[in-house]
Amino acid sequence: MDTSPTLLDDRRTSPASRKTSGTSEVAALQVGCRSGAKRATLKEGPPGSESIGYDLHESLQFMEYANGVAKNKGKIKGFFRWIYICTIGVATGAVAIAIQMALHKTFEVQYELQDALAEHGLGLRYVAWTGIRMCLAAVAGALVCYVQPLAGGSGIPEIKCYLNGVDVPGVLHLRTLVAKAVGIVFSVASGLPCGKEGPMIHSGAAVGSLMTHLSAWKLKGPFRQPQEARDMTAAGAAAGVAAAFGAPIGGVLFAVEEGASHMNPRILVRTFVCASLATLTVRFFLGPLDGDLDWGLLGTEVPVEFGRFPSRNYMVWELLIFALIGIAGGLFGAAFNQLNYRLTTWRMVYIGSRGTRRFLEVLFVTMVIASVNFWAPLMLGGETERAKFTSAQLLFQESGNTGIKALFHDETEFDWRMLLIFSFLHFAAACWTYGLGVPSGLFVPSLLAGASLGRLVGQLLRAHVALEASPGVYALIGATAFLSGMARITISLAVILMETTGDAEFGLPIFLTVMAAKWTGDKFNKGLYDIHIGLKKVPLLEHFPEKDTLTIQAGHVMETCLKVVEPQMTVRDLLQVLGGCKHNGFPVVESSSWRFLGLVQRNSLHHLLQSGKAHGAFRVHGESERGIVPFEVMAGKGYPDCESFEAVRESLELEDLEKVVDLTPYMNSGCYTVPTEAVMARCFMLFRTMGLRHLPVVGKDLKLQGMITRKDLILEEEDTELA
Amino acid sequence: MDTSPTLLDDRRTSPASRKTSGTSEVAALQVGCRSGAKRATLKEGPPGSESIGYDLHESLQFMEYANGVAKNKGKIKGFFRWIYICTIGVATGAVAIAIQMALHKTFEVQYELQDALAEHGLGLRYVAWTGIRMCLAAVAGALVCYVQPLAGGSGIPEIKCYLNGVDVPGVLHLRTLVAKAVGIVFSVASGLPCGKEGPMIHSGAAVGSLMTHLSAWKLKGPFRQPQEARDMTAAGAAAGVAAAFGAPIGGVLFAVEEGASHMNPRILVRTFVCASLATLTVRFFLGPLDGDLDWGLLGTEVPVEFGRFPSRNYMVWELLIFALIGIAGGLFGAAFNQLNYRLTTWRMVYIGSRGTRRFLEVLFVTMVIASVNFWAPLMLGGETERAKFTSAQLLFQESGNTGIKALFHDETEFDWRMLLIFSFLHFAAACWTYGLGVPSGLFVPSLLAGASLGRLVGQLLRAHVALEASPGVYALIGATAFLSGMARITISLAVILMETTGDAEFGLPIFLTVMAAKWTGDKFNKGLYDIHIGLKKVPLLEHFPEKDTLTIQAGHVMETCLKVVEPQMTVRDLLQVLGGCKHNGFPVVESSSWRFLGLVQRNSLHHLLQSGKAHGAFRVHGESERGIVPFEVMAGKGYPDCESFEAVRESLELEDLEKVVDLTPYMNSGCYTVPTEAVMARCFMLFRTMGLRHLPVVGKDLKLQGMITRKDLILEEEDTELA
Repeated sequence: MDTSPTLLDDRRTSPASRKTSGTSEVAALQVGCRSGAKRATLKEGPPGSESIGYDLHESLQFMEYANGVAKNKGKIKGFFRWIYICTIGVATGAVAIAIQMALHKTFEVQYELQDALAEHGLGLRYVAWTGIRMCLAAVAGALVCYVQPLAGGSGIPEIKCYLNGVDVPGVLHLRTLVAKAVGIVFSVASGLPCGKEGPMIHSGAAVGSLMTHLSAWKLKGPFRQPQEARDMTAAGAAAGVAAAFGAPIGGVLFAVEEGASHMNPRILVRTFVCASLATLTVRFFLGPLDGDLDWGLLGTEVPVEFGRFPSRNYMVWELLIFALIGIAGGLFGAAFNQLNYRLTTWRMVYIGSRGTRRFLEVLFVTMVIASVNFWAPLMLGGETERAKFTSAQLLFQESGNTGIKALFHDETEFDWRMLLIFSFLHFAAACWTYGLGVPSGLFVPSLLAGASLGRLVGQLLRAHVALEASPGVYALIGATAFLSGMARITISLAVILMETTGDAEFGLPIFLTVMAAKWTGDKFNKGLYDIHIGLKKVPLLEHFPEKDTLTIQAGHVMETCLKVVEPQMTVRDLLQVLGGCKHNGFPVVESSSWRFLGLVQRNSLHHLLQSGKAHGAFRVHGESERGIVPFEVMAGKGYPDCESFEAVRESLELEDLEKVVDLTPYMNSGCYTVPTEAVMARCFMLFRTMGLRHLPVVGKDLKLQGMITRKDLILEEEDTELA
Repeated sequence: MDTSPTLLDDRRTSPASRKTSGTSEVAALQVGCRSGAKRATLKEGPPGSESIGYDLHESLQFMEYANGVAKNKGKIKGFFRWIYICTIGVATGAVAIAIQMALHKTFEVQYELQDALAEHGLGLRYVAWTGIRMCLAAVAGALVCYVQPLAGGSGIPEIKCYLNGVDVPGVLHLRTLVAKAVGIVFSVASGLPCGKEGPMIHSGAAVGSLMTHLSAWKLKGPFRQPQEARDMTAAGAAAGVAAAFGAPIGGVLFAVEEGASHMNPRILVRTFVCASLATLTVRFFLGPLDGDLDWGLLGTEVPVEFGRFPSRNYMVWELLIFALIGIAGGLFGAAFNQLNYRLTTWRMVYIGSRGTRRFLEVLFVTMVIASVNFWAPLMLGGETERAKFTSAQLLFQESGNTGIKALFHDETEFDWRMLLIFSFLHFAAACWTYGLGVPSGLFVPSLLAGASLGRLVGQLLRAHVALEASPGVYALIGATAFLSGMARITISLAVILMETTGDAEFGLPIFLTVMAAKWTGDKFNKGLYDIHIGLKKVPLLEHFPEKDTLTIQAGHVMETCLKVVEPQMTVRDLLQVLGGCKHNGFPVVESSSWRFLGLVQRNSLHHLLQSGKAHGAFRVHGESERGIVPFEVMAGKGYPDCESFEAVRESLELEDLEKVVDLTPYMNSGCYTVPTEAVMARCFMLFRTMGLRHLPVVGKDLKLQGMITRKDLILEEEDTELA
């Protein structure tokens, strides 16, 4: 019910109670509500965040529409869906190409400038270096701090929440997409340890979601159904991964692993098509643009993101070393998460999510990191000109992707002391940067930190033991270990790394490392994305209920402070209910017996009040049946979106207020209910697999007893953990 | 309810009605049953096949057990589960290695004999060739026709059914595993166009299922829960794919695509570990045994199943050709399926599933195919000695896997006429063989047929157009197209082919081909596995309800002829109910009001009657509460398996018959129910995603109105299609 600490009323708002209800009565009734007020303060979630319901809307109105119109237009709709999906793939690919090319250019200019200044003193070079980087960071920071705070970070936590069923408003809007896609170019170019990959995934998801807002003539309505929007967004996110890493399969698996409890083979195929097209788009353009291939040539010649290994041989006992590296990755990852958690809570208190303080922090952090990256390569002496740097020195000044490629593939040894210093400094810088007011992905910085440590281990071991695997392979294993230890992604990460280095044969060592890192990390804390979701207080439902949920019954978990509606109500009463709370689902109950009849959504009611008069849905007391507002009309007005309560109230005339509306055609009469004795594990299962938003709890006589929302489930789990 | 045409009784069997019930009354009541009798004859399914229920068993008895024992043993159980899963992986790998090595040896001997006879006349060589092959086929045929008919075919349809929730008894037993694993060696060695891969998948699933029967001391019970058994079987099947193709990711995706509606990240990881271990086992042993690598060397040196391509370049416009090949593959696949469907229906009538007639068919078919394979290479003249054959001639006499490798990788041109003849004959032979009384996979024969056609296209095109892709790549595309056109597998097939040729970069063309083939084929008929499932009349629930299910209500679909039980019953009455039907789920209703209370399973009741006396669950009329049989006791006696009704009845003494048992502790009181007005689409969704077996339908007053089983859903869909 998305309980907010507004007017809580234990009884339905009937005309009788309405007239007498005053502050004192409300206060008195709140005592009767078992949990509401306390809970509402416990977990409010990000401002305005809304839970999404994906259940079959079994209302008379919708069924009529679905049986009539949809049957005839089914094929057309299917055709449009494919066009939409293909467009999402291509558009996501195009966004990725734009980011990539822009980055390429920006780095080139910076290096050229440094090389041009090579004859001047270090001081001038330092000022130019740091100044440019601060300017670039300022653009990225301004976009986040002043334009759209949601463009900050990687965006993966937000996408995960959306796919789980919690919509943070604005996350998938055009403004966010633009701020993110433009911002990430500047934040990566500013030399901050950010990856472009996370933001690309966010961009893809936003493209997918925006597509569903496109009007395809009469077909617009259906595509804004929550299920369609969710599937398109998931496809977009998968396309984002596919475009970022050239990993279509990894992208699909990422969508499955990180979000989608709703996957089935049909959606899987669509997602796959979308991801494949994104990869194709990127490959087609980047081959000739970024490399020097002929236009149109594809296949094995096209370079893969992190470069192909000519050989990745290893001896069976090296699997043991890989597992140990995995464990180390898990430990480092857990430490990273812990540090970043502390930093983020500090930031939430002292910096805030937008404004000048956050902007200044961006400039300060960029200055420090740029300075470190400028001076650190010179620490151990050696050349001071960039053009003459050793490969280990270059790590500090090149983009993350170039660094990773070097660590994977360079034949020459890296200076081990430099490598050690770099991994330590990079670890710290990455931790400091994530949560800063710029768009910033985590994949590349953590891969880079892990790769440098892995390369170090590989080089040191090779000096003493006869290893079969090359230090580059150890760098790959280290990268895998650290990323998995930090983000706790498993299968999709393994597949992404396989695809992004172009070989399907190296799955086993990568997978072993991934699992070792995840299991180790899980002993200490959650994955970084989940930590940030937790900090935002988003009520995310995990895949599984805790074991203890077998002892708890629905009656114990449910919210008992309900706002209910009756099958027939006057417009005035309905306005009273809608205005008196912010709930989104209202149980419809029989007036006399409180028997549960169905569930009606706030958006349906708003639309009904707005369009009801024109379609004859308002009737005078005693009059017999009148018309209903067809679903097409609501869809035409943007359903599931609706006007605000105030707008709806103002659209009504005084004479309408005493007229009666029949709510039964708009209620979901088939919605799932559970008896009060049902165990919580079952409620959890229903919520998770069916994508519910509200789960009414009924007694033996079908009398409404309460309602369960995702917040109730999560709070109950937390209570259990604390107890 | 698995209605069988036995005594159908519209009223619960109460003492009153029992005494008067005679044939005439039963007959009269049958008229009241809307659908039962007709339906039961429509779709009986394979003899003894049982639907499986995966719902949470929310009974008092089980909850007590789960909260008490399981809490303490949770970690131990988790530990054992990992041991089990690892064992399944390694064991499946071991089975695959044994099959592979045995095949290697058998082919070697055959070739050596042919080469030794090279100086003798063609006649003698022919007799030796055909004679040996008929002897080999005789062993495979005998195993299927006389020992275990379920070992015939690929086994994939049966696994698909099991994962979907229909258990054909014996499919996963040791006897079937042995017959299949031994039989496949002989059937492949006999030169029949069979692949070993399908049977390897079946073997893996059987290994997985058998593991759950292993006694792990006190932990035995829990692992025989239907959910555990299903997950282990799915893991085993994935391991089978992984072992057969060296494709762990493909294996996991195969399990997801072909069966598992129940996948979630936790199970996915387990399945992945299992599949990875199977691949590791195969790689570790086959590298040194089959190739000539050092022991312990792994990675890129280890040969992959169908060989690596050094380059798979293609131009972007070649994607169009690939798509056209995909369409052709869809057409050929559909034709293959149609022909095989006719052949199989003919076989069902004239051959039967076991016995001498089937055995003689095996010998006859083997003789014909062996003769064709002996003489066909000589049709166009040329050398008659095997050792001097051209690569096109060799295709007839070598194993399918060798042929595929040659088509993919041979640099020299194949004689196009020979290639054409081969693909035609092989197509016919493969179609003739599938359904024969031998273990026979379909992957390799269809890949081979497709590869030869694809190679032909590639070679012909290359002579006239400047292609970038090599004819070998065209062979790969052809193979993909044909297999997908026949089996209609999509994502997992694409991934398997990528892994089995060792490159992750070629996904796009393969995926494009797969989708083109699937969509084309779907225009004509179903995939071959689904055709065979249909022929066996297995009530398989597809992933989606038909669109029309929105108009149909639960009340229309449900079975109304029910056998119900009361919360308290005498042993005699309970025996009467259990003996009078073969139903497996009994709704518990309040005597007076027919109000639905819960669902109790036949196996619980059998166990209760058997162990009830010892645990004081039988009480004399009027006596107050007595004990209940704890779940551990039932688990110790093999729950969910139970003794037959006859055994249970004989275990009871005469004096027990009038005692009263309380059924409420054993009933699932939380089981999902739907109101009579719920649309069928919702019932379908509940069934499919929650893995139900019975779905009680209740009226407004919670009075039991009927029950839906998977057969009702499928029949309704078929009726709708016919209408």
